Amino acid sequence: MPHPEPLLLELFAIFVWAKVFGEIFEQLGLPSVLGEILAGVILGPYATSFVNPSPTTLALAGLGAIFLLFTVGLETSPKELIRAGRISLSVALAGVVAPLALGFGYLRLRGDPTHEAVFVAAAMVATSIGITARVMGDLHVLHTRVARIILGAAVADDILGMIVLAVAAGLAAGGAVQWVQLIVLFIEAAAFTLFMVFFGSKVIHKMRPGVERLSTENAPLVLSLAICLGLSVAAERIGMAAIIGAFFAGLAFAEYSAEWRLAPRVNAINEFLAPFFFFTMGSRLDLRIFSPDVLAVCVVITLLALVAKIVACGVPVLHEGWTSALQVGIGMTPRGEVALIVALVGLQMKMISPAGYAIVIFMTGATTLIAPPVLRYLFKREAAPLD
Amino acid sequence: MPHPEPLLLELFAIFVWAKVFGEIFEQLGLPSVLGEILAGVILGPYATSFVNPSPTTLALAGLGAIFLLFTVGLETSPKELIRAGRISLSVALAGVVAPLALGFGYLRLRGDPTHEAVFVAAAMVATSIGITARVMGDLHVLHTRVARIILGAAVADDILGMIVLAVAAGLAAGGAVQWVQLIVLFIEAAAFTLFMVFFGSKVIHKMRPGVERLSTENAPLVLSLAICLGLSVAAERIGMAAIIGAFFAGLAFAEYSAEWRLAPRVNAINEFLAPFFFFTMGSRLDLRIFSPDVLAVCVVITLLALVAKIVACGVPVLHEGWTSALQVGIGMTPRGEVALIVALVGLQMKMISPAGYAIVIFMTGATTLIAPPVLRYLFKREAAPLD
Repeated sequence: MPHPEPLLLELFAIFVWAKVFGEIFEQLGLPSVLGEILAGVILGPYATSFVNPSPTTLALAGLGAIFLLFTVGLETSPKELIRAGRISLSVALAGVVAPLALGFGYLRLRGDPTHEAVFVAAAMVATSIGITARVMGDLHVLHTRVARIILGAAVADDILGMIVLAVAAGLAAGGAVQWVQLIVLFIEAAAFTLFMVFFGSKVIHKMRPGVERLSTENAPLVLSLAICLGLSVAAERIGMAAIIGAFFAGLAFAEYSAEWRLAPRVNAINEFLAPFFFFTMGSRLDLRIFSPDVLAVCVVITLLALVAKIVACGVPVLHEGWTSALQVGIGMTPRGEVALIVALVGLQMKMISPAGYAIVIFMTGATTLIAPPVLRYLFKREAAPLD
Repeated sequence: MPHPEPLLLELFAIFVWAKVFGEIFEQLGLPSVLGEILAGVILGPYATSFVNPSPTTLALAGLGAIFLLFTVGLETSPKELIRAGRISLSVALAGVVAPLALGFGYLRLRGDPTHEAVFVAAAMVATSIGITARVMGDLHVLHTRVARIILGAAVADDILGMIVLAVAAGLAAGGAVQWVQLIVLFIEAAAFTLFMVFFGSKVIHKMRPGVERLSTENAPLVLSLAICLGLSVAAERIGMAAIIGAFFAGLAFAEYSAEWRLAPRVNAINEFLAPFFFFTMGSRLDLRIFSPDVLAVCVVITLLALVAKIVACGVPVLHEGWTSALQVGIGMTPRGEVALIVALVGLQMKMISPAGYAIVIFMTGATTLIAPPVLRYLFKREAAPLD
């Protein structure tokens, strides 16, 4: 065609740069996600202005967030979660309440508006399972009791994080805090969660004979994509973020993911869309916002995010010894996609300032960088004398 | 979020309706693609106006076309193509020249402008391998000599179709026909084609050790997506349609598709994006355009499209008997995605009128509907006395 479409060139540039930065980070032993975000920071409108994401790219990034959470849901077995038992649940619960309270308390004491404090605190809640699981996998300790506690708690954590985000987003509805509305939303979110955890996969089970009778090619995949989009719309309709619906859609299909080979195929959609999400996350970050004052808040929030998880998640395991407690505590510290999405939702709803957004990205990056080496040290020290 | 995003609702509606219509068509023994297009016709702006595709949806549909052709390329083995031999090649060549000449000649005689005649004729070129392959698969005759000739010719056909489209799109560059420019473009398109068919997969072969050393997860998939986007941009830059680049990217990776498990994963991206493409194809069709005059042209073009392929593709096989010649001829008649994309490119470049667009859709639908039952009859009659 005589007029090259600028969109394709933009998508090509973003995809390639995000992946090149991701690969460089991987080679340096750092999480690739941070590289993809950095690509957006450096090439985005606030720095070199090499790529200014168009509305279509931002829409693709939004779909990327939806598929990211759909994948997280697909990898979360509700059955295992229910089986994970009391310890994982108390680790998760403590690990949600502590950072929420510390983050919210600190920012309110500083005089930040309530909605900003709520969103930054909400972003401090959800543990990124990916980072910790990979470190433990590398050390071949995934089968240990500690690893199972961490994984179970991180999963419960994601779900509690979804409820926190739903409530935080509900805050935005009226501008000021409207308690009645908030309580209704909390009940709605909790009911949605309980329904999806306990009955979601039963609904899919009921649909199964019908699905297998369909003539449409790849019917299970098509059904899962339709339900992912449908629950995203439904979640927005009852006042929650779309990604919450996508996460629950994943949860409902988790048990059939292996049988229907959903995970690798949804993951392929993810591979295509996620770089646009991470890149645009970075492109919204203005590095000039890191004034000494904001940087101080970044450091404090990061410290609170670390301490809150280490202490709160460690305490329920303390009876199994200090090392186990520390391993669980550190294993729960890295924040990931969910924190980023909370920040993005907040920014889009104008619930957090660009400074609040920068603080969340800083905290996510720092916790993701700090946890793996410490975790490696803690597990190696324990494993060495035993082998 | 308090303001439900209309985009997600739109995507959900399009995806579900396209798939529901597709499933109904499958149940009736008709190609699902026609059902997805019909969903767009009925629910689109020209009829019920239930869904009016937004610019973002149209962009997703464009990506859908790119991944559609990327998949077609991935399923096309250049090696087998080269091996397919003289008969397949002469069937393909005759099957390209005849409809092109008949379609162009008829429309020019009617007094249509050159560019419209070229685009409609170009849409008459490429055989849809999918329909015929499925019918032959159902009858368990895919191993026969006739089937192999058809499949080889259909693949060569796609490539020749790409060159025709490139040249047709080149016509649009100056508005009027500029022969020098056209010849340059033809040489460029032919060189691009020959390079990708003969050297594309060698380039990937050279990159292979490097790819396998990368730390990025799913590195081969990521590389193939990057090259798909990159060649799409490159094709546009040298004045061809983006989908041509995507097709050649698929061709280059075809040999590694199995080893790197690319096909099922790229297909998943396809499953998500293709319904938006087919739906918006339908939504651009105004049924009121089918005046008696236009309808007459539709019927003539469809007849020419049928006769051209049956005669031109049958003749090179005539020495193997009438039945074989008819089987090959009928097997080559159904048009599919490539025809639709040629029409869409033409419409977007304002090279064909809405009537020309409607004619191509009619011809595609009609050839796709007519071929399978005839093919079934021809193969059954032959197979029955032999078994």
